[in-house]
Amino acid sequence: MIKGLTRAGLGAGAGDLESLIRLASEYGFAAVDTSGEELETLIAARGLSGAQALLKEYGVQIGSIGLSVEWRTTEEAFRSGLTRLTRDAEAAAALGCKACCTYVLPSTDHNAAHFMALATRRLRTCAQVLGAYGISLGLEFVGPHHLRTRWNNPFVWDLPSTLDWIETINEKNVGLLFDAYHWYTNEHSIDDILNLKVEQIVHVHINDAPAVPVSEVLDNGRLYPGEGVIDLAGFLRALKQIGYTGVISQEILTAQPPADPVETLLQRSRDGFAKVYQAAGLEA
Amino acid sequence: MIKGLTRAGLGAGAGDLESLIRLASEYGFAAVDTSGEELETLIAARGLSGAQALLKEYGVQIGSIGLSVEWRTTEEAFRSGLTRLTRDAEAAAALGCKACCTYVLPSTDHNAAHFMALATRRLRTCAQVLGAYGISLGLEFVGPHHLRTRWNNPFVWDLPSTLDWIETINEKNVGLLFDAYHWYTNEHSIDDILNLKVEQIVHVHINDAPAVPVSEVLDNGRLYPGEGVIDLAGFLRALKQIGYTGVISQEILTAQPPADPVETLLQRSRDGFAKVYQAAGLEA
Amino acid sequence: MIKGLTRAGLGAGAGDLESLIRLASEYGFAAVDTSGEELETLIAARGLSGAQALLKEYGVQIGSIGLSVEWRTTEEAFRSGLTRLTRDAEAAAALGCKACCTYVLPSTDHNAAHFMALATRRLRTCAQVLGAYGISLGLEFVGPHHLRTRWNNPFVWDLPSTLDWIETINEKNVGLLFDAYHWYTNEHSIDDILNLKVEQIVHVHINDAPAVPVSEVLDNGRLYPGEGVIDLAGFLRALKQIGYTGVISQEILTAQPPADPVETLLQRSRDGFAKVYQAAGLEA
Amino acid sequence: MIKGLTRAGLGAGAGDLESLIRLASEYGFAAVDTSGEELETLIAARGLSGAQALLKEYGVQIGSIGLSVEWRTTEEAFRSGLTRLTRDAEAAAALGCKACCTYVLPSTDHNAAHFMALATRRLRTCAQVLGAYGISLGLEFVGPHHLRTRWNNPFVWDLPSTLDWIETINEKNVGLLFDAYHWYTNEHSIDDILNLKVEQIVHVHINDAPAVPVSEVLDNGRLYPGEGVIDLAGFLRALKQIGYTGVISQEILTAQPPADPVETLLQRSRDGFAKVYQAAGLEA
Repeated sequence: MIKGLTRAGLGAGAGDLESLIRLASEYGFAAVDTSGEELETLIAARGLSGAQALLKEYGVQIGSIGLSVEWRTTEEAFRSGLTRLTRDAEAAAALGCKACCTYVLPSTDHNAAHFMALATRRLRTCAQVLGAYGISLGLEFVGPHHLRTRWNNPFVWDLPSTLDWIETINEKNVGLLFDAYHWYTNEHSIDDILNLKVEQIVHVHINDAPAVPVSEVLDNGRLYPGEGVIDLAGFLRALKQIGYTGVISQEILTAQPPADPVETLLQRSRDGFAKVYQAAGLEA
Repeated sequence: MIKGLTRAGLGAGAGDLESLIRLASEYGFAAVDTSGEELETLIAARGLSGAQALLKEYGVQIGSIGLSVEWRTTEEAFRSGLTRLTRDAEAAAALGCKACCTYVLPSTDHNAAHFMALATRRLRTCAQVLGAYGISLGLEFVGPHHLRTRWNNPFVWDLPSTLDWIETINEKNVGLLFDAYHWYTNEHSIDDILNLKVEQIVHVHINDAPAVPVSEVLDNGRLYPGEGVIDLAGFLRALKQIGYTGVISQEILTAQPPADPVETLLQRSRDGFAKVYQAAGLEA
Repeated sequence: MIKGLTRAGLGAGAGDLESLIRLASEYGFAAVDTSGEELETLIAARGLSGAQALLKEYGVQIGSIGLSVEWRTTEEAFRSGLTRLTRDAEAAAALGCKACCTYVLPSTDHNAAHFMALATRRLRTCAQVLGAYGISLGLEFVGPHHLRTRWNNPFVWDLPSTLDWIETINEKNVGLLFDAYHWYTNEHSIDDILNLKVEQIVHVHINDAPAVPVSEVLDNGRLYPGEGVIDLAGFLRALKQIGYTGVISQEILTAQPPADPVETLLQRSRDGFAKVYQAAGLEA
Repeated sequence: MIKGLTRAGLGAGAGDLESLIRLASEYGFAAVDTSGEELETLIAARGLSGAQALLKEYGVQIGSIGLSVEWRTTEEAFRSGLTRLTRDAEAAAALGCKACCTYVLPSTDHNAAHFMALATRRLRTCAQVLGAYGISLGLEFVGPHHLRTRWNNPFVWDLPSTLDWIETINEKNVGLLFDAYHWYTNEHSIDDILNLKVEQIVHVHINDAPAVPVSEVLDNGRLYPGEGVIDLAGFLRALKQIGYTGVISQEILTAQPPADPVETLLQRSRDGFAKVYQAAGLEA
């Protein structure tokens, strides 16, 4: 399983995509998550073969791009993002990226049933476009309890509901962005992971949680891997056991961006990954 | 537009399907709504050509059958109805019936978003099976206000939400069972009907409502056409204007079944239809 | 039914889209067919509201745009057209155009079954993208006999096969570009039109055929409406009878572009339309 | 990978399903392929729990049932099999069987493109029904050269075309019935197997081919595993390498059913499996 970075947890100093790639490589990471626009910018700057060469030189792949389409508000906003989506997908496919992800808030001010119908249709369209480029769409359920009542109506926040939803969307290339934080805040088990089929997982995030009651864990109160109480060793072992070989990206959402220099944060991330990978028996 | 009957409003004396067909014909109706099982029983009793001949003799068509599959509870219950569904569809197709309908309650004790996902998947499967037989699936939104809060979480109860949902189900043969009562209790307009495409309508129900505030109209407090305050003339004219030529079935849900003899109720239904059809300019 | 023009039949002098719109209006046409790129160019030149105003001023709508995606060759070629497709669709939707069409050659040098599988998948993706913009995809079967054996393996060229194919593609917004020439060269009947549902028709072409045996009619040997032997009056009456109210565009494919001045060709087109519309009882 | 039996290769003496299960167990097989009707008969005879207990007692699972629906001829024939399909699926699901398979002839007397469109639609409907029961549909491409020209028009017979077709059918639960004979007669490679994702494989058949030129190999000229020239060791190793853990069923189609006693044929099958499993390093 490939160690990856998002920008969440690196403070303000990670720089542009090229910089992020260099830093990732330097600190032992082999993947970065980014946006389609950043990929397009990189290709524009270096040419496609130049961009491919850069990734090869640093031994870094693109783990996932974010879904840039606005699927949560109006039909007009949704539509107006589809050209951007094809461009994102084209850039991602050209650089070997196979995943595009979005998160799902666990409550909504819309009528929840109606919003589910709209979201299903829009995300299906996104999946259809992405599928033409060989890219999968990953949906991230979001577990922290405070967000379940943050808006008026409950939506979906756990694994079984999200898997049911994925069945409903009914496109082969839709699966989970599976985040350890949301697995933890739902109090899901190792067996819940072992019951997944590997093709249901599009992308994985890790991060850790403080030692507070699960119901009080805040979405933006995340710790670096190994610094908290989530059984990340068990999480990683279970993913390996079902055959997952893809990227494990760190995503440390915090109330304030960390103030430490990016090198400090990268070293902390490297150490965190080493700790939990070793605990999982994934490296010496 | 073809005048039709359901059993709702005929009390206990309408008898079996054959009896219902004879009575419908006698009182000027050219369609009846029934179940797939009743169709199968009729075919078993008379042979397919005998059943077809009966319908022809009385000038009565089958307007719609009810969706017998349990799509609202467990996956096991859902599955176990699929064989019955294929048999319903086979009988319906053999007798020229093109519509199979189900109603949608406006609130639910389930998580509404999750239930929407499950319902979408299950109804899509039903539509796919029905589609193989050339039969459409009609979804009836249910408008009365008291049912919107009858269970814990709001679901869908109006025309726009239902049309969005139909788009999400994404099978060509899914449309509306459009009931005048639910149009009225949603305070939808004539323009809302005129904005429909005729292919969005699978089946139509009419009945009337008492002169009480709309928010107090009870689902089982329905009157015969022309006995209440719904603008059924406008409703019918608008349907005709968009090109609807199918069945208009009466469905009078009441707290207690009417105690009058079936002949009295049929005469009352005939008179009600005559009144609103005349008001709509549909007959002399 | 709205009289429309394509450029096929207007020689080299029709000019750009703005010119085509003016000429159409001047000669009694209320629709033109064009490309998404031309629409985008018009919007770029005049602004969206300026482009909308132009159409309004001249009383001309956009009948259809051509499907710009290359769906007949490689996967790479196909993919690389999807961004263009979203842009086409965005421009078309902004200007009220609801149809995007492509033709289907009746034979192929590919394995016909495999090509059908690929074409089904690619056209479904196109339909899904177009559907997000409220635009339908029209497939034009191509009837002339010489093309049925022009390439090694027979593909599809008639109405029933195309309708079956449309069912297989299984998106609501896919239907026919129904061309009188292909209806004629297949020796389809008026009843074949009457058996269509209006929602199966996305767009219509007319043109006429010379008095030669049907099997010898050439695809690029077309005449102006009313100058040949096709029963265009019957064709139009049948379309009207099933409720078609959309655009009827002239498409005169010829071996050499006509050399007459565009005004002469437009007058000839106007006269042809007048003749067949009158014969069909559609105008005084 | 689980050793399985079909009846093809066991002559006339294998008896009913219960007998086949006992014999399979006795000769070291842990799976049998059968029909939904046989499963239903078994359940009718022993009750569901009795049938489940029988399978458990003998350590035998149901590898696959045949697709009983007639998808190759008329729409009427197709439809009339759908009730049977739901019953097959219900029986299969109740007994833990997850696969339903059909073969695809490599040529057809129909127009190949039109037949592809019809077949795609019908098999999609079958997949949708099976999917409701958690069962996958396996499509078996058929490679022997003589069948590619047996009927007038070429259809599909190789792995890449079949994978493209499966994409076109576009249901998650459709994959390959992957038969070593057809892999061999297409001269596909080990790499072709290694490039598959395990979820693309629904079921596997093995059998062997005589030492004649590949183009002369007859579909009903099959040998028992290890008695011919197919690299079954490589075939099995590659399947294991991509993570396949399902059933490998023997299917020995011959011009005449073998005349030997069933016990002799079973011993021959056991020996054949032992030989190729050992060569593949799958057992001591």
